[in-house]
Amino acid sequence: MSGRNLVAVDWGTSSLRGALIDADGRVLEERSFARGILTVAAGEFPPVFERCFGDWTAPGNLCLISGMAGSKQGWREAPYCACPAGFDDIAAHLEWVEPGRIAIVPGLSVDKDGVPDVMRGEETQVFGALQLLELANARLVLPGTHSKWVTVAKHRITDFSTWMTGEFYALLRQHSILARTLPNNTNDSDPAPDPGAFEQGVAHALRGQGLLHTAFSTRTLSLFNRMATDALPSYLSGLVIGEELKSQSLQRGDAVVVMGEETLTARYEQALAQLGVSVQRVGAGATWRGLRAIADTLPRTGSQSTIHRITAP
Amino acid sequence: MSGRNLVAVDWGTSSLRGALIDADGRVLEERSFARGILTVAAGEFPPVFERCFGDWTAPGNLCLISGMAGSKQGWREAPYCACPAGFDDIAAHLEWVEPGRIAIVPGLSVDKDGVPDVMRGEETQVFGALQLLELANARLVLPGTHSKWVTVAKHRITDFSTWMTGEFYALLRQHSILARTLPNNTNDSDPAPDPGAFEQGVAHALRGQGLLHTAFSTRTLSLFNRMATDALPSYLSGLVIGEELKSQSLQRGDAVVVMGEETLTARYEQALAQLGVSVQRVGAGATWRGLRAIADTLPRTGSQSTIHRITAP
Repeated sequence: MSGRNLVAVDWGTSSLRGALIDADGRVLEERSFARGILTVAAGEFPPVFERCFGDWTAPGNLCLISGMAGSKQGWREAPYCACPAGFDDIAAHLEWVEPGRIAIVPGLSVDKDGVPDVMRGEETQVFGALQLLELANARLVLPGTHSKWVTVAKHRITDFSTWMTGEFYALLRQHSILARTLPNNTNDSDPAPDPGAFEQGVAHALRGQGLLHTAFSTRTLSLFNRMATDALPSYLSGLVIGEELKSQSLQRGDAVVVMGEETLTARYEQALAQLGVSVQRVGAGATWRGLRAIADTLPRTGSQSTIHRITAP
Repeated sequence: MSGRNLVAVDWGTSSLRGALIDADGRVLEERSFARGILTVAAGEFPPVFERCFGDWTAPGNLCLISGMAGSKQGWREAPYCACPAGFDDIAAHLEWVEPGRIAIVPGLSVDKDGVPDVMRGEETQVFGALQLLELANARLVLPGTHSKWVTVAKHRITDFSTWMTGEFYALLRQHSILARTLPNNTNDSDPAPDPGAFEQGVAHALRGQGLLHTAFSTRTLSLFNRMATDALPSYLSGLVIGEELKSQSLQRGDAVVVMGEETLTARYEQALAQLGVSVQRVGAGATWRGLRAIADTLPRTGSQSTIHRITAP
C-alpha cells in the first residue's frame, strides 16, 4: 500500500480539497473546489469525484476521503467510531465505496450522561497533528464555527467536545439586538481587530456569569460610551472565545495544540496567553498527514475488498 | 397628590398600555395599543399620548409613565438612577415632560467591574410586586427576551442583571444550524410543550459545561434518534433557562419571586423546582401597583414644577 501514491481528500460541508501524496508523505499537487457536500445531489458524488480527482486515482492509487462526505447527507454514510479511537480503529472501519480504490474515513462519537457528541474530519486533522508534532498525549483545539476540544492519550482520542462558538458569534453579530449597536451588520465588513477590546472581552467572560449575561455588556458599554463602536466586534469575539476557554478546566502552565485558519487561531492564542496557557501551532497539512498515516496502517497488499466484506456485510 | 386618580402608563418597545387608578389603588379602566416606542416618530409622542390617554389626564390627574419611553429613542430621556435605589429615589428623579401633569419614571443602572447593566420598566414592576407581596427583601426574576434577576434589600433594589435568554432561544431556534433539526422554523408553530424534554434540557444545562457546548446536544440527540423531533424545542428551552438558573447561585430552599407572562413563568417555576427553589408568583398588575406607589411618595401639593427645575436645569 505505502509504495503507491495516496489521493487524500477533505470533503467538507462547503469545500472540497484534495492532495496527491507520495509514499514518503510529500505533497506532489493540491487542488480545491467549491463543491462542498451541500452542492452535490444524492447520486452525483461519484461523477463529481471522478471529474476532480479521476486522473490521480487512475494509476491504481488509493484514495482516502475524510469529512462530511461520510455523513448521511454525503457520498456514503460511514458509521461513527466510538471513542477512545486511534489510527488503527479508523483504518479498520473505513467505508469502501470502491473496494481497493476509494474509502471514506469514519468520524468519531463520544457519549457522556446519555448525550452524544460527534466529529467528522477533525479526527483526521488531529491524527495528522500528532504525527507532525510527534506527540502521544495532547490537548487540542480546532477553532471554528463549531470548535472541537480534543483529548489524546497514548495516541488515541479519548474524549472530545463541540462548542458552537463561531456560530454564536455570527448569530449575535448579525441577528441579535447587539447587531443594532455593532458597526455593520455583516461579518465581512468588520473593522480592524482591536486586541485591547478582545482582551477585555476575554477577561469579562472569564470572571463573568455566562454568555447569556455577558453578551448584554456589548450593548451597555456602548450605551454608556465606554467602548468605541469599532471595538465592539472584537470585544464580542473575546466574550465568546473567553466563554469557551472558561469551561475547559485549563490551568496556568498547561499546553494546548491550536489548529486551523490563522486569523482565528491567533485570537485563541491571545486568549490562551491570558490564561497562562502555552500554545503549539499546527498549520495546514495536518489533514494530509493524517490521511497518509491512516493509509500506512492498511495491509500492503490489495486486500481492501476483504475488509469491505467484513465491515459492510 | 394621592387624592387624585393616577394615569399609569407602561410604554415599552413594542406595546403601550395604560390604566386609570384611583387613590386606593383600584384599577378603574385599562387600555392597550400597538404603539410601542418603535412605532412612534421623534416629536410624535405628545400627540400619540393625548389621543390614547388625553381624556384621563384632562381632569387634572397625574400621569406616570414607565418603560422605554424614557430611553434615548423614547419621548424624553430619563437618566438612569444608580442602584441601590428605592421608590423615593425614583420619585425624586422623575423626568417631567409636562410639569405637574406627565412624568417619566427613570430606569435603573448598576455597575460591576466597570461594566454597566440597565433596566427600564422592570424597576416599577419590582416595586409593585414588593407592595403586593408585602416584602422588604426578595430575589426576583422577570423572564423574557431579556430576563432580569433582581435583588431587593430593605425595600431597595441593590443589584440586578440582564440575561438574554429569550433572545438566545429565538436565535438558536430560528437562525442556527439547530433550526434544521427542529420541527419548524418559526416560534409561532412550536409543537405542544413537552415537560419531560424540558426537564432533560434543564438537567443537562445544570451539569453541563455551558450553552456553547450543551446547545449542540439538541442536534446530536436528534442525530442518534434519542429524542423525538417534536420534543426538541422544549429541550432547547430547558437548556437556555437551565443555563440562566445555573448562574444565579441558588441554594435548595431558597425562594424566588417570578413575574411575567404565564406560559413563560410556568417554565421557570418547573426549572426552579428542579433546583429545590420555591416560587412566589406575581401576575399582572405589578406595574400599576408600582406606579401608584411611586405617585404616593410625591408631595400632596402640586409642586412638580419645582422638582422639574431642580432635576432638569
